[in-house]
Amino acid sequence: MPSPASEKAPETEPQGTMFLGASRVTGGGAEVRSVNPGTGKPLDPAYHYGDAGDVDRACRLAEDAFDTYRATTPEERARFLECVAGKLTALTDAVVERAHLESGLPVARLTGEVGRTTGQLRLFAAELREGSWQGARIDPALPERTPQPRPDIRQRRIPLGPVAVFGASNFPLAFSVLGGDTASALAAGCPVVVKAHDAHLGTSELAAGALRSAVEECGLPEGVFSLLIGDGPTLGARLVADPRIRAVGFTGSRAAGLALMRTAAERDVPIPVYAEMSSVNPVVLLPGALDERARELAEGFVGSLTLGAGQFCTNPGLVLAVDGPGLDTFLAAAAGAVEGHAGATMLTPGIAASYRAQTEAVAGHPAVTRLAQGVSSEGASPCQAHLLAVGADDFVAEPALQQEMFGAAGLVVRCRDLGQVADVLRSLEGQLTASVHTADGDLDAARELLPVLERGAGRLLFNGWPTGVEVGHAMVHGGPFPATSDGRSTSVGSLAIERYLRPVAYQDLPAELLPRPLADGNPDGLWRRVDGVPGRH
Amino acid sequence: MPSPASEKAPETEPQGTMFLGASRVTGGGAEVRSVNPGTGKPLDPAYHYGDAGDVDRACRLAEDAFDTYRATTPEERARFLECVAGKLTALTDAVVERAHLESGLPVARLTGEVGRTTGQLRLFAAELREGSWQGARIDPALPERTPQPRPDIRQRRIPLGPVAVFGASNFPLAFSVLGGDTASALAAGCPVVVKAHDAHLGTSELAAGALRSAVEECGLPEGVFSLLIGDGPTLGARLVADPRIRAVGFTGSRAAGLALMRTAAERDVPIPVYAEMSSVNPVVLLPGALDERARELAEGFVGSLTLGAGQFCTNPGLVLAVDGPGLDTFLAAAAGAVEGHAGATMLTPGIAASYRAQTEAVAGHPAVTRLAQGVSSEGASPCQAHLLAVGADDFVAEPALQQEMFGAAGLVVRCRDLGQVADVLRSLEGQLTASVHTADGDLDAARELLPVLERGAGRLLFNGWPTGVEVGHAMVHGGPFPATSDGRSTSVGSLAIERYLRPVAYQDLPAELLPRPLADGNPDGLWRRVDGVPGRH
Repeated sequence: MPSPASEKAPETEPQGTMFLGASRVTGGGAEVRSVNPGTGKPLDPAYHYGDAGDVDRACRLAEDAFDTYRATTPEERARFLECVAGKLTALTDAVVERAHLESGLPVARLTGEVGRTTGQLRLFAAELREGSWQGARIDPALPERTPQPRPDIRQRRIPLGPVAVFGASNFPLAFSVLGGDTASALAAGCPVVVKAHDAHLGTSELAAGALRSAVEECGLPEGVFSLLIGDGPTLGARLVADPRIRAVGFTGSRAAGLALMRTAAERDVPIPVYAEMSSVNPVVLLPGALDERARELAEGFVGSLTLGAGQFCTNPGLVLAVDGPGLDTFLAAAAGAVEGHAGATMLTPGIAASYRAQTEAVAGHPAVTRLAQGVSSEGASPCQAHLLAVGADDFVAEPALQQEMFGAAGLVVRCRDLGQVADVLRSLEGQLTASVHTADGDLDAARELLPVLERGAGRLLFNGWPTGVEVGHAMVHGGPFPATSDGRSTSVGSLAIERYLRPVAYQDLPAELLPRPLADGNPDGLWRRVDGVPGRH
Repeated sequence: MPSPASEKAPETEPQGTMFLGASRVTGGGAEVRSVNPGTGKPLDPAYHYGDAGDVDRACRLAEDAFDTYRATTPEERARFLECVAGKLTALTDAVVERAHLESGLPVARLTGEVGRTTGQLRLFAAELREGSWQGARIDPALPERTPQPRPDIRQRRIPLGPVAVFGASNFPLAFSVLGGDTASALAAGCPVVVKAHDAHLGTSELAAGALRSAVEECGLPEGVFSLLIGDGPTLGARLVADPRIRAVGFTGSRAAGLALMRTAAERDVPIPVYAEMSSVNPVVLLPGALDERARELAEGFVGSLTLGAGQFCTNPGLVLAVDGPGLDTFLAAAAGAVEGHAGATMLTPGIAASYRAQTEAVAGHPAVTRLAQGVSSEGASPCQAHLLAVGADDFVAEPALQQEMFGAAGLVVRCRDLGQVADVLRSLEGQLTASVHTADGDLDAARELLPVLERGAGRLLFNGWPTGVEVGHAMVHGGPFPATSDGRSTSVGSLAIERYLRPVAYQDLPAELLPRPLADGNPDGLWRRVDGVPGRH
């Protein structure tokens, strides 16, 4: 049901279409609908999967748009991102209502997520204006150098090319169509082709409409953005395999992320994949902290564990502590809190079923003790909180116990001593976060753990809970594999722009041809390194 | 033949050993000797390939050394790199003599390469002291923020872990044991395990002895460096597959680089591979430049093409120009220069044989015209310069003609017009460099080509020849696949340190535990971003 491409204001009702550049297109493949996770009922409108031709068209448009789009100034892209933010803000009510229907997430949370999403877009607008992301470096010519003169060499970063983005289930806005991956890629100067998550097709379409409308208002080429609908193994894989795609941003399951990594590695021209996959986010409760405030820690822990039905990438699924009265107090208090916790609706019936299977498998392990379970929510996507415990020796011996249970389930690992806490930490896979709770007397123990934690995670927290990821300049939402496919980057915060850039050097380029960030006289007042010395010169 | 670990001065004669940390070890595998490429005669001493146990020991030592080594201050690592440079300088005569025997490269060139190698080490020492590579960012706490206070978040980069480095055949010093990969990894704080190139085992051992001696003098853990000897498909692959190795630096053939990429991608924990592989380094001669100085261009081109028997990664193997009298003049002059060129000895008999096969295949292609061939050198590793030409339509239609001929062979692609020049450039694989020669009237044409060149190469040169890679801050020696496995980085210049780092965020870390680059008051006067604002604060 194509509508005219000339619309200025984004639709407030989903139409059941993809966007191939400026065109609304209804896929020719299988029908698919998002499902109300509470009722399990399919939602209107119906969508249809796209096919190879749709992928081809989206990628061709993106490729065609690339040189024009990357030639825009940072200021122009900043205004574009701000325009997108404005369009989304204007659509808040419609988007929140639809996202609530599709995800079961509370309206207040979703309203906050709109703010987070527009905040991200504005952060990248600010980053574009700040400009040091361009990595400008100038080594001036040394014509008198012997035995050979040195040429003039200048370096800046340029965008990689069209980027494929895969929306996540658990943040239908902030990690989806207009989320951090899209915002950072667009900021870098890369056109974006998004594959919508089946769980929130309507939300995706509305958000895409906002972006489309901004593309048009800013006079950018239509291929700067397309939205595809399809399943991961076929359409998603085809998108990643398309030779015009130059990088991939993904947040989702480990299996899906690994599949995309394989596809990307098997291309004739391999490309980087930034996949955020799975993390159990260990929390260490040091003895002094347990002695001092075990009940308060239990309350904080269960609050973080059950927030949003535990469906955060940074959900604290693993607690490490030394056995003793402090831990006993913590466990008793945490068990009480979990038992009193009424589960929320999970994002999809499939996620709820996986969560049930994962928790049953772990709880059923002979070495695992079930300490408490919460009240299960009703409906098609129920969640029931779980608190489980296991001894450290058994935990280390059984890799299956280290797997993420995506939901509100926490496993407490009882350790003999602090040395064993460190051993358990060393045995873990890579993590997004690692947290330590300390009292004054714990500082030496914390200092010893720090190098272990640094090697294992992207963000270390002291006396805080990992849910809640600030969107700023210093944030790292990343970490060693398998937390992400590439621990050298972050998917949240302004540093994310670097994922979609690469350096280029220019040797003896005539002044008339120099890219503006490298021009003599530094017309934009950028931070640059001149002969290695950083400064606004 | 182990010698005592207490030696202070490095040996000036190769002993036929590997280094596993502080221990000289003779491998238990097949005998292997470097070969004098001129005579084809094997050289003393005999070496023996290492085995799985040697790889295991080198990696264990590296892992054991990692936390201690990365805890050294940048100043300590800077002094260590300077110490390495000093040890190598002191060994210059012995190293040059041995490298000359093993590589056939002229003594003057090798003496220069020692200087280049020590210059690289000193550049990274300076970079360590400058400090902005640490990527320090601070988002201060906002305790009054509503609805929720903002925690204090600080970010810095930390080293990835032990790095495997594969020495290149064509730079027995500057891209080998003490080359840029090793220097940048050591600067970053990563222990290094080098696999020596079979073509220059003695040179590798002498250089390793210099490094060993510096490790000892600086009181660093022995595992900071090991040298292994073995073949790529077995020992090399085992090294890359070792779970303690966290990144790979490689310069060499495309086949070998692709094999390492596959091994790295198939690990349980995939790791980054920085492989520099192949490049034909297109050179565009614009019409005005040809009109103005065709003979001068021909002289410059043949000089760059035949330098070091054409065995540079940045050898200008491809020339693009529009047909016409200017090109005819260029070709006649270039043919004359090639015919008069006496080939030098190539690096190994195997490289010479490959070069012969590659040039015969290209020259034998029905669409290719042989314009000139030089005088072949004598001996076991002869080189003969070749100048070949082909029409642009045939060139684009035949991918085999785009393959690198590693040696002094140039292929000139005759184009109908500038549009076809751009089409040919777009059809090329990723390149390390792309060069444009211009006269005043060519500036508009150059401006149009610039976006094409940027997308295709890591370094763009104007009115220069690509051989000769400056070691500085603005250099990019990298480029899109298959020039390298990862176009987001460089293997030459100070930016290379970033390949071996990843960001970590610290949230509400107690002041006593803050890493020094993130400490309040900025004790080292680093460039940091505070709330996104860069400055020395």
